[in-house]
Amino acid sequence: MAAKAIESNVIFRPHFKTHQSAAIAEWFREEGVTAITVSSVSMAKYFARHSWKDITLAFPVNMLEIDEINQLTSEIQLNLLLESEETAIFLNEKLTSDCGFFIKIDTGYHRTGISPSNILLIDRVLNAVNSSKLHFKGFLTHSGQAYHAKDKLELSRIQQSATENLLRLKKHYHHRYPEIILSVGDTPTCSQLPIVNGIDEIRPGNFVFYDVMQFALGSCSLEEIAVALICPVVAMHPNRLEAVIYGGAVHFSKEQTLLPLDPEPFYGLAFSWNVTNWNTGDLLGKISSLSQEHGIISLTQAGCNLKPGDLVAILPVHSCLTASLMRKYIDMDGTEIETMNT
Amino acid sequence: MAAKAIESNVIFRPHFKTHQSAAIAEWFREEGVTAITVSSVSMAKYFARHSWKDITLAFPVNMLEIDEINQLTSEIQLNLLLESEETAIFLNEKLTSDCGFFIKIDTGYHRTGISPSNILLIDRVLNAVNSSKLHFKGFLTHSGQAYHAKDKLELSRIQQSATENLLRLKKHYHHRYPEIILSVGDTPTCSQLPIVNGIDEIRPGNFVFYDVMQFALGSCSLEEIAVALICPVVAMHPNRLEAVIYGGAVHFSKEQTLLPLDPEPFYGLAFSWNVTNWNTGDLLGKISSLSQEHGIISLTQAGCNLKPGDLVAILPVHSCLTASLMRKYIDMDGTEIETMNT
Repeated sequence: MAAKAIESNVIFRPHFKTHQSAAIAEWFREEGVTAITVSSVSMAKYFARHSWKDITLAFPVNMLEIDEINQLTSEIQLNLLLESEETAIFLNEKLTSDCGFFIKIDTGYHRTGISPSNILLIDRVLNAVNSSKLHFKGFLTHSGQAYHAKDKLELSRIQQSATENLLRLKKHYHHRYPEIILSVGDTPTCSQLPIVNGIDEIRPGNFVFYDVMQFALGSCSLEEIAVALICPVVAMHPNRLEAVIYGGAVHFSKEQTLLPLDPEPFYGLAFSWNVTNWNTGDLLGKISSLSQEHGIISLTQAGCNLKPGDLVAILPVHSCLTASLMRKYIDMDGTEIETMNT
Repeated sequence: MAAKAIESNVIFRPHFKTHQSAAIAEWFREEGVTAITVSSVSMAKYFARHSWKDITLAFPVNMLEIDEINQLTSEIQLNLLLESEETAIFLNEKLTSDCGFFIKIDTGYHRTGISPSNILLIDRVLNAVNSSKLHFKGFLTHSGQAYHAKDKLELSRIQQSATENLLRLKKHYHHRYPEIILSVGDTPTCSQLPIVNGIDEIRPGNFVFYDVMQFALGSCSLEEIAVALICPVVAMHPNRLEAVIYGGAVHFSKEQTLLPLDPEPFYGLAFSWNVTNWNTGDLLGKISSLSQEHGIISLTQAGCNLKPGDLVAILPVHSCLTASLMRKYIDMDGTEIETMNT
């Protein structure tokens, strides 16, 4: 991803919410990364403590954390997201150090942000900003609808529509704010498609590990998924082709996904584990059900040879949530890797 | 629940996986509780450290934790669940102190356990036990299918069927094991129905807080839900009747539920919060969507008056998962209550 950003001449500002680890962050530093994205003030504080000096907090401003935001702006280059006049007025009054901001644009995900056609509201937000501490950096979007694209063609249409809207905004505001940039970033688009001309910054995050959802979306191969949860089998029910593992909702979270042509959503894929590696050529089953600590694997024929006490490697549907729940990693050499949740 | 157990003359062995807190456990001690249920070895260790001396680990034995199990059996009365010969043979060899065990019976949930009609397998497991350290305590079930009952009549049928199967087993094995007991326990059944004659022990857990799922099942009123997550509003989208809160899958988990007659599953209910209390008379909306840190509330008319910076109280769909994710509580006086995850 770093190489792709260099080739495309865009800023690479990876999202660190997937790994949440200062040690893994250093791997990015080795690739030349100096600017990052986070999704909470506590994550920004954690990475600021670990010498990251340029952080975009890609989440609407939580006014109740203004003291921590002011602490951060006094120490690092922090960028916030704005999408309302209220927040602009609040920051005018409360901000104590220089701070960048992006206008969050809703390019079709409809979670947060201002519609790109709502120039009136964008103007109102920009005009509400009257603090010399607030510096307009540009327009930012997260095309989360990319996660619902049925194929690469639809993904491409989503990217095209988002980019056209952003480019139109940049053109519209260029005379007033000549330095503004366009920032995009979701792992499916950044993995599967070229970066469109005119985009200035990408912020993908999940690609550091990928997961079964990204596999289902076509963003990665199974072999490229770089994180697994190793779980013990605690009971076998071969009569209904099921194994029970110690691995439930408190370990995986309850995110589901579907494989193309498969009618049943599931919570993870189970592969054989030989103490040092998992084998994506040896599918043992799918997690068909999760309760608090129990996971039920619907077994393949190969999975029916499992017995209580065996370990299996589960590739998670959503690595961000599973990693956050597990709070630390063990690398392939057996070394523990801490996170902000350890 | 303690009073109901006394009236029905059954052992009350509440499940502590919902709260996971030694401080909250003391509230149970005040009600005369001395025996408890947990769902992991680490939870058993935590409560053993806090002077709980009689613990049933209601989860299939994880052979890889045998050292910790042996440590526990040397300190407390521990009961394990057995459902296979392999595990019995393993425990024969490895157990170093006295330990009770229940045979886990599958009374229709089909997650773990032996079918009550499979006397052959039950006999095989019991006959495989040849260690004088292993003491057969009785039959245990968790009728998790109670969570799928459409109404009280169906719940009653589930209870009746489970109880009949257990009573038949008790009768069958009574001559050989005159001391064995029958242990049941799910919050919907224990909350909504009388305890059936012949049952010796109940193990409900969720009722300590209840949650929106239990409300949807008819186990409690909205007013009886005793835990909420207080979340800040970070963006308003009144044009589509939506608010964005800082409260996502990493705070709530992605468990969903349905209200009767309501077509759309949701992740939590939002009520007004006046700094000390939430008001279940003032519904502001439902969490219709969750991503990692964002929650989207589909607003009622009352909810449309919210603005960024306001706090709302979210009653969670599944309090066990939300409590586990949040790792500690603040009581109504502002005092922090620690848990094993703090």
